[in-house]
Amino acid sequence: MDRKVRVGLIGSQFISTIHAEALKQSAAAEVVAVASPTRGNAKAFAQKHGIPHHLTDYHKLLEMNEIDLVVLGVPNNLHCQVTVDAAAAGKHIVLEKPMCLNLAEADRMIVACKKAKVKLMYAEELCFAPKYVRLKQLLDSGALGKPVLVKQSEKHDGPHASHFWDVNRAGGGVTMDMGCHAVEFFRWMLGRPAITSVYAQMGTAVHADKTQGDDNAILILEFANCATAVAEESWTKMGGMDDRAEVHGSKGVAYADLLHGNAIETYSAVGYDYAVEKAGSTVGWSFTIYEEIWNYGFVQEMAHFVDCVKHDKPPLVTGEDARVVLEVIFAAYESAGTGRKVYLPFKTDAAKPFDLWKNRS
Amino acid sequence: MDRKVRVGLIGSQFISTIHAEALKQSAAAEVVAVASPTRGNAKAFAQKHGIPHHLTDYHKLLEMNEIDLVVLGVPNNLHCQVTVDAAAAGKHIVLEKPMCLNLAEADRMIVACKKAKVKLMYAEELCFAPKYVRLKQLLDSGALGKPVLVKQSEKHDGPHASHFWDVNRAGGGVTMDMGCHAVEFFRWMLGRPAITSVYAQMGTAVHADKTQGDDNAILILEFANCATAVAEESWTKMGGMDDRAEVHGSKGVAYADLLHGNAIETYSAVGYDYAVEKAGSTVGWSFTIYEEIWNYGFVQEMAHFVDCVKHDKPPLVTGEDARVVLEVIFAAYESAGTGRKVYLPFKTDAAKPFDLWKNRS
Amino acid sequence: MDRKVRVGLIGSQFISTIHAEALKQSAAAEVVAVASPTRGNAKAFAQKHGIPHHLTDYHKLLEMNEIDLVVLGVPNNLHCQVTVDAAAAGKHIVLEKPMCLNLAEADRMIVACKKAKVKLMYAEELCFAPKYVRLKQLLDSGALGKPVLVKQSEKHDGPHASHFWDVNRAGGGVTMDMGCHAVEFFRWMLGRPAITSVYAQMGTAVHADKTQGDDNAILILEFANCATAVAEESWTKMGGMDDRAEVHGSKGVAYADLLHGNAIETYSAVGYDYAVEKAGSTVGWSFTIYEEIWNYGFVQEMAHFVDCVKHDKPPLVTGEDARVVLEVIFAAYESAGTGRKVYLPFKTDAAKPFDLWKNRS
Amino acid sequence: MDRKVRVGLIGSQFISTIHAEALKQSAAAEVVAVASPTRGNAKAFAQKHGIPHHLTDYHKLLEMNEIDLVVLGVPNNLHCQVTVDAAAAGKHIVLEKPMCLNLAEADRMIVACKKAKVKLMYAEELCFAPKYVRLKQLLDSGALGKPVLVKQSEKHDGPHASHFWDVNRAGGGVTMDMGCHAVEFFRWMLGRPAITSVYAQMGTAVHADKTQGDDNAILILEFANCATAVAEESWTKMGGMDDRAEVHGSKGVAYADLLHGNAIETYSAVGYDYAVEKAGSTVGWSFTIYEEIWNYGFVQEMAHFVDCVKHDKPPLVTGEDARVVLEVIFAAYESAGTGRKVYLPFKTDAAKPFDLWKNRS
Repeated sequence: MDRKVRVGLIGSQFISTIHAEALKQSAAAEVVAVASPTRGNAKAFAQKHGIPHHLTDYHKLLEMNEIDLVVLGVPNNLHCQVTVDAAAAGKHIVLEKPMCLNLAEADRMIVACKKAKVKLMYAEELCFAPKYVRLKQLLDSGALGKPVLVKQSEKHDGPHASHFWDVNRAGGGVTMDMGCHAVEFFRWMLGRPAITSVYAQMGTAVHADKTQGDDNAILILEFANCATAVAEESWTKMGGMDDRAEVHGSKGVAYADLLHGNAIETYSAVGYDYAVEKAGSTVGWSFTIYEEIWNYGFVQEMAHFVDCVKHDKPPLVTGEDARVVLEVIFAAYESAGTGRKVYLPFKTDAAKPFDLWKNRS
Repeated sequence: MDRKVRVGLIGSQFISTIHAEALKQSAAAEVVAVASPTRGNAKAFAQKHGIPHHLTDYHKLLEMNEIDLVVLGVPNNLHCQVTVDAAAAGKHIVLEKPMCLNLAEADRMIVACKKAKVKLMYAEELCFAPKYVRLKQLLDSGALGKPVLVKQSEKHDGPHASHFWDVNRAGGGVTMDMGCHAVEFFRWMLGRPAITSVYAQMGTAVHADKTQGDDNAILILEFANCATAVAEESWTKMGGMDDRAEVHGSKGVAYADLLHGNAIETYSAVGYDYAVEKAGSTVGWSFTIYEEIWNYGFVQEMAHFVDCVKHDKPPLVTGEDARVVLEVIFAAYESAGTGRKVYLPFKTDAAKPFDLWKNRS
Repeated sequence: MDRKVRVGLIGSQFISTIHAEALKQSAAAEVVAVASPTRGNAKAFAQKHGIPHHLTDYHKLLEMNEIDLVVLGVPNNLHCQVTVDAAAAGKHIVLEKPMCLNLAEADRMIVACKKAKVKLMYAEELCFAPKYVRLKQLLDSGALGKPVLVKQSEKHDGPHASHFWDVNRAGGGVTMDMGCHAVEFFRWMLGRPAITSVYAQMGTAVHADKTQGDDNAILILEFANCATAVAEESWTKMGGMDDRAEVHGSKGVAYADLLHGNAIETYSAVGYDYAVEKAGSTVGWSFTIYEEIWNYGFVQEMAHFVDCVKHDKPPLVTGEDARVVLEVIFAAYESAGTGRKVYLPFKTDAAKPFDLWKNRS
Repeated sequence: MDRKVRVGLIGSQFISTIHAEALKQSAAAEVVAVASPTRGNAKAFAQKHGIPHHLTDYHKLLEMNEIDLVVLGVPNNLHCQVTVDAAAAGKHIVLEKPMCLNLAEADRMIVACKKAKVKLMYAEELCFAPKYVRLKQLLDSGALGKPVLVKQSEKHDGPHASHFWDVNRAGGGVTMDMGCHAVEFFRWMLGRPAITSVYAQMGTAVHADKTQGDDNAILILEFANCATAVAEESWTKMGGMDDRAEVHGSKGVAYADLLHGNAIETYSAVGYDYAVEKAGSTVGWSFTIYEEIWNYGFVQEMAHFVDCVKHDKPPLVTGEDARVVLEVIFAAYESAGTGRKVYLPFKTDAAKPFDLWKNRS
């Protein structure tokens, strides 16, 4: 492709803002349209980000011939339908986590994209976060020996949008929301060996008034290369976003902390605008972060996906990867529901992961 | 008791040196004898630490009327017999982890001490480590709200003494050796609610040439107050001892790191005598620790136990606590052997924890 | 001396509380009396700390035959007279920084103690702080090579007692208050080579409404062994006490932080009793310290001074050391007043250091 | 300008590699030529970086009509002549620190560029380093109150190229090499108030065998807004590059560390390719950095300068700023030579800064 890749955004909330800002930094892309169903949202978004076209119906966006790539920022329960529609319209697709609500949907999406010969690209930004990329290089270089234990955790005090609290719309709680990151992080870090088993500990520790879903979870994964991985996810951790990882190997160990580990250590008696996502007050001590979307890897991720479209390259993270992640999430809820280690591959007809935990028949 | 408490040490290896040094700092105690079976060891130890009497047979030490308290520094498989003998001789007893090899032994020890009206005091030093004591005060004060998740990990690159590698003598691997610390730490931190379940992930990742036992383990405990606890233990982590804890609550979170979190950050092109236990080389960057036995709580622990004897007070950590820890360790090996969450109370006739993991019939 | 060393405290404010608590931890000392002029203060202090005698007139305390050692916690302008009186009464003396108001006073004090054959011991606790003791061992061991640059800073948001703000009573500002610590720290760390020059930058940056004295200062010292030392002192730094040191040598470097570098990292939405001296609010992030008086070295310092009296040993820090510190402080104010490096030895008849800065004639 | 800005690089060593890599990330620039006098260097550089033209004589490069902007990576003693030549050829200029050898040269350069109506842009990358940019935003937002003390230090174990050790070619030692960064950092951070005085402490502590220049220095600057600034520079600090800054204000304080404060904390028993600039061995503990040129601000700096040329905007850092920095450096050497605070403006005919220190007549 000799020209810039033309992008349509579907969605106008938190994550779509990140997409728009990340795409602005890509010289090879231009965002040409945004679609959002609530009257006024797409228009305001388009004005704010200098996007020429705005629509309320995403089907109209898919009809725009000039668009090469659509980036989805819609609720989980719409992922499947929008993906299938986009594939039918011949658009390449960038999809956020979690892939969709269940494995049948996942299969439909993969088949639809394969048939339409469009790329289904899975936006696991941790695989592009520059500190974690360096961590993987350390492991790949042999600096740490054979991996023994890999850890990753993501913690904050609860999601931005209300639909996350409704297990019927979200499919699950914090494991569904943030466990996805950890699972693909582990696979990528370890070179994608098969996952052989999953164990999960889940609880609704603080937000039982708001959700039936899990607000704290621990996942233990075993890999075919004998490494163990531990994920910690929380929707109850105050004091701002926490995202950190560790790799323990037979010859060494490495600790990488994306937020506190990069921050300016600040004390302010009067406070200021913003320290970090979900930080709460900035009066007193805080950990001031900078250039968040670059440091999380969103810029690098979008540049990569645009490059994949422009030069017809295979993406680093695919729909097939997203399906494995979803399978692990289902297995995790099964484990939480049974108190047992669940071996993979795991097949299930459950409509959503949550049904395997508290709703077991 | 109007005079100093008179102490006899049984053992002359690594941990007995710590006992002797900790007791030197207690104005209320004097060490009057040491017993160690290998010819020459007790004598050398006594000379080094200025102890008046040295013996090869611990029975002779137990016969010394002037001794009030014995502190055991012997292999795990001797804990039961020496304790029973000491109780019969009317001595108060300080016992290191793990309590003994199995639950039948534990019961014998508790009964023997109760019958003899001597104190059975369990030396879980983490309950006295000043940073962790402060952490508990934070939690108890309400600063962190209701506890949701408590974590503790202890990691180094393998034990000092060779008998740890032999599962027949040690009873298990790293879970048996260091998981004990975590379990009692969690109970103490949370105010000793009942433990309702245990899950364990174990592996022999690096030292399969030396041991059949676990050299890496993850434990997940559920408590009756709904808190979850996660322990990580490792015998494969290079770069020096690591001991850290976290308390996540409904109103806050606290991170306490005993080693890196207290150290002098040092770069030396030429190296020096000692950075921290099991640090390996001190050339290049290292994390220099200071006053280790004070910071681990050994001094405070011994002062407490001596005070309990002197003023007939109940110890902070008892033989009953030690038995709960051992029950959890057995349950952990059962879990690792079955891939299931094990509910407590857990009864077993197993001769040692390891038999429930790889040796299951 | 076969019995405990009997101690009298003169003073009942902040520092005397630290003295009392530190002395409680010394098995070789007992505090037998406290004197404080304000009616009721000594009595309340004695009750709180279990001290048998309390007096309003320190002369009465000096008349008590059973007292071996007096520990002074009085304003700077009384140091000389009380020391001279105590020496005349045959008491050994522990003196806080700064030694006194001027060099003539310092000479009187040294002569009085020498003549009376009593020990004049200078309470520079940084020479006993266990982390800094370890730092000195690193340097002495050769781990860092030849010292090139030594740094120490002490910063908080202003002194406890109001007399510190009055340059006529205090003699100076933050350099007089806290620069003393740095100067003796440098001398001790480097093995007490001669100081060849002093340069000082002083300012009244924030508290001009309260004081004419310096509330921020930078000192640069040159030593006869060619090392340079830099001290930073501040009475305007919010967020809690800061005390840290660095040693840069030809073969390495070491960083030691007494407060943030030892703390529990805490987030509390509701706050708690105490994080660290002068921390302000504990709502939000804070750095929780533990066992402060031990970690600052007060316990070890008092134990050492008591031991010096008990066994007639030379103290680690003497009146002569205190006089050198005071000479450097005078030279620093001279430098701030002239904008020049001041070479040592420095002689001056100034009544107090402050007179050499803003009050120059 | 509707097209890309066409850039010529003069130089092919360490800093020119950084320029080339930073410019590759700018969508608005293309590097069209490189000039370097040593036969083969320019060619190899051009091949490595995909640059179409390479030359040995920079005059030839200046004759290329298509070039808009030249970026200089030449020894300090050539800065003046190449700048004057480039201005005469109508090229915009990016200049590295230090601006040149003396103030007469600086004036010639400024006049030449003014006359030729080309931009003289001074490449102080710290003004673009994203963590420091965030630090400035904190200060500008009022979060820290009125600035009282600003600190910045840069330390490593010695320069890359041999000409730095020769004071005749370099003009001075570490103050000339790295003090430049600190001075402009302070001016930028504080909003460029006038500097009223400079004091400097310099020494040749470790490398007296290699250089007469200063290998360690402390600078104290006073600003017209009453803030004080302290710079520490070292060519003797082992263990890898150190670059950190602090802003202490009347309402708060902030600490920013570019290297250790962003790193992966790594232990490797076997070592690996690269931890950080001048790290030495990577066996044992190291602090692994990532995306250095982005984190130092080189990418953002070049993008800014290219944008200034493309859209005819005033650069953030100019030749006039560079001249102030050089004036401060001269004043610093004067101060080191006299032991006095030097007040600004400072005029001197000295041929190079070093002459004011050890070579004073």
